[in-house]
Amino acid sequence: MRPPYTLVSSAMRLIRPSIRRLTSIAYPGSEFMSYMNNKATSINKALDGFVPLCNNSVPLWEPILEVRKAMRYTLLSGGKRLRPMLCLVASELVGGQESTAMPSACAVEMIHASSLILDDLPCMDDDSLRRGKPTNHKVFGEKTAILAANSLMSLAVKQTSASTSLGVPSERVLWAVEEMARAVGMEGLVAGQAADLAGGSMSFENKDDELRHLELIHIHKTAVLVEAAAVVGGIMGGGSDEEIEKLRRYARCVGLMYQVVDDVLDETKSSEELGKTAGKDLITGKLTYPKLMGVENAREYAKRLNREAQEHLQGFNSDRVAPLVSLADYIVKRQN
Amino acid sequence: MRPPYTLVSSAMRLIRPSIRRLTSIAYPGSEFMSYMNNKATSINKALDGFVPLCNNSVPLWEPILEVRKAMRYTLLSGGKRLRPMLCLVASELVGGQESTAMPSACAVEMIHASSLILDDLPCMDDDSLRRGKPTNHKVFGEKTAILAANSLMSLAVKQTSASTSLGVPSERVLWAVEEMARAVGMEGLVAGQAADLAGGSMSFENKDDELRHLELIHIHKTAVLVEAAAVVGGIMGGGSDEEIEKLRRYARCVGLMYQVVDDVLDETKSSEELGKTAGKDLITGKLTYPKLMGVENAREYAKRLNREAQEHLQGFNSDRVAPLVSLADYIVKRQN
Repeated sequence: MRPPYTLVSSAMRLIRPSIRRLTSIAYPGSEFMSYMNNKATSINKALDGFVPLCNNSVPLWEPILEVRKAMRYTLLSGGKRLRPMLCLVASELVGGQESTAMPSACAVEMIHASSLILDDLPCMDDDSLRRGKPTNHKVFGEKTAILAANSLMSLAVKQTSASTSLGVPSERVLWAVEEMARAVGMEGLVAGQAADLAGGSMSFENKDDELRHLELIHIHKTAVLVEAAAVVGGIMGGGSDEEIEKLRRYARCVGLMYQVVDDVLDETKSSEELGKTAGKDLITGKLTYPKLMGVENAREYAKRLNREAQEHLQGFNSDRVAPLVSLADYIVKRQN
Repeated sequence: MRPPYTLVSSAMRLIRPSIRRLTSIAYPGSEFMSYMNNKATSINKALDGFVPLCNNSVPLWEPILEVRKAMRYTLLSGGKRLRPMLCLVASELVGGQESTAMPSACAVEMIHASSLILDDLPCMDDDSLRRGKPTNHKVFGEKTAILAANSLMSLAVKQTSASTSLGVPSERVLWAVEEMARAVGMEGLVAGQAADLAGGSMSFENKDDELRHLELIHIHKTAVLVEAAAVVGGIMGGGSDEEIEKLRRYARCVGLMYQVVDDVLDETKSSEELGKTAGKDLITGKLTYPKLMGVENAREYAKRLNREAQEHLQGFNSDRVAPLVSLADYIVKRQN
């Protein structure tokens, strides 16, 4: 049910040119943007409700009020909501309701927000700009930022666990919690961040080794949580093992693709266009896809990952699968 | 099932002098120490196995090896193992097996270790000595310390979730996960640490207000996780709602008592005797029980909490309850 992470690039070699394209069944552009905006509005509303600043009109205990403000600052600061959206769409694809998957979709976004706060810390990436605003620790200080990150993580587990009250069987909820825990720890975000930070001090025999290392970073740092989002959606929606496995493979490709596109944008766009410090990878000497294979090849690689992602969706009802096809297309074409 | 936190000191006013003492049924001292040592040995062995440095004889991916070493450094650095021990004893009290409760007992200790790593960071308590050794970030650096703390937290959730394979029903495992998530976040450790760090900048109208604030800090920073340990043990052991509620109330008193004793030791013992920086509360101007009520009154308060803790154990089988009675006695008398 839960295979070890395989290298997507090795899998890429097996892709035949005759791969059946599914992009023809994607939503028309404007319809998809409206679909996305509706979903994002529901997600933002739900996220807002999960971290209130008062409790039944009673103001919160002063020390935790500041932590809550810090949680809200990053959680509600925009962002594309890719992960919770993917979670909701995956759930609906297998026949689930939006309301049932919403708490865990929001939980995945909380985990993402938590990881952004920690990644930006002075001892990590030392970043001062995120989504066009000062980073969390720049506004609230390091200690409150770390406490907010921890709170978001525990709130994610708490909200997901509470999904039994929406009628999801305990076995499924527990499975979703396990997927999230795995995505956060040494098999996911922690490994990705550790490898990312260690990159500069590691030596590689050749470019293939470097590429393999970079892919491992991105699979762990980005793709694992994107994968968890889709898988958790499939679990909450009541999907079969086979359906959930397809969603997992689709999302792993999409997650890696997201990061390849991110690397390209970092090198080709300005800070204003991105809403974060551009060109930083180049300055800090981090490994990136454009650096290892050139901008054009990196763009081509993202397109190949999009095709592979869509291949994993074969067998699903073509009407229902349209949002996932469009979502992958949107990511590969995004400009910020 | 899960009452709001009441102030133990308010509850204290209601305690009548006629309270029935249970200390007569405690283990004899030497028998209890041997019982404790056996439990600690099992716990240490289990903890060691949960964070291996290689995977089926295959060395780990280099970047996460360092994170694992940091996890092990704090997790396996001794400590009294109070929380996992309490979890195991609570489980056995309600008829459970040690082997069934062990993963979640270890999970509670992982959460505790994670919180110690974060509390010691320069932006938090800025401590350099813990259990007689340099703190985690002093040895591994801040970024690895933070990643190790996160990994320990996610491993705790993962190990607890896996308890279904030991025959614990999913509903109970999920309940245990929820208890842990609550103990970590804004209703627990995060609130305690935020309030602790804010203490210096807050103003109080009188000593009663200060005492109330101090109690809220300690209930959240210490008692909540001690409570979670006992409650999780009760859940995993198959206890009834009533039994689990008694364990909760017992452990909340024990947790607060632990902290009152800690405050007294900080003021009356040397760094060598404690294995951590002594007298630090005094230097940093932190609120403590000895500071607010004097050393002797604080000692007396700890004894009263011990009596109240034991009162909550009434109704349990007196043979089985002996370890919990002895554990509370041990904590109130501890010298480091």
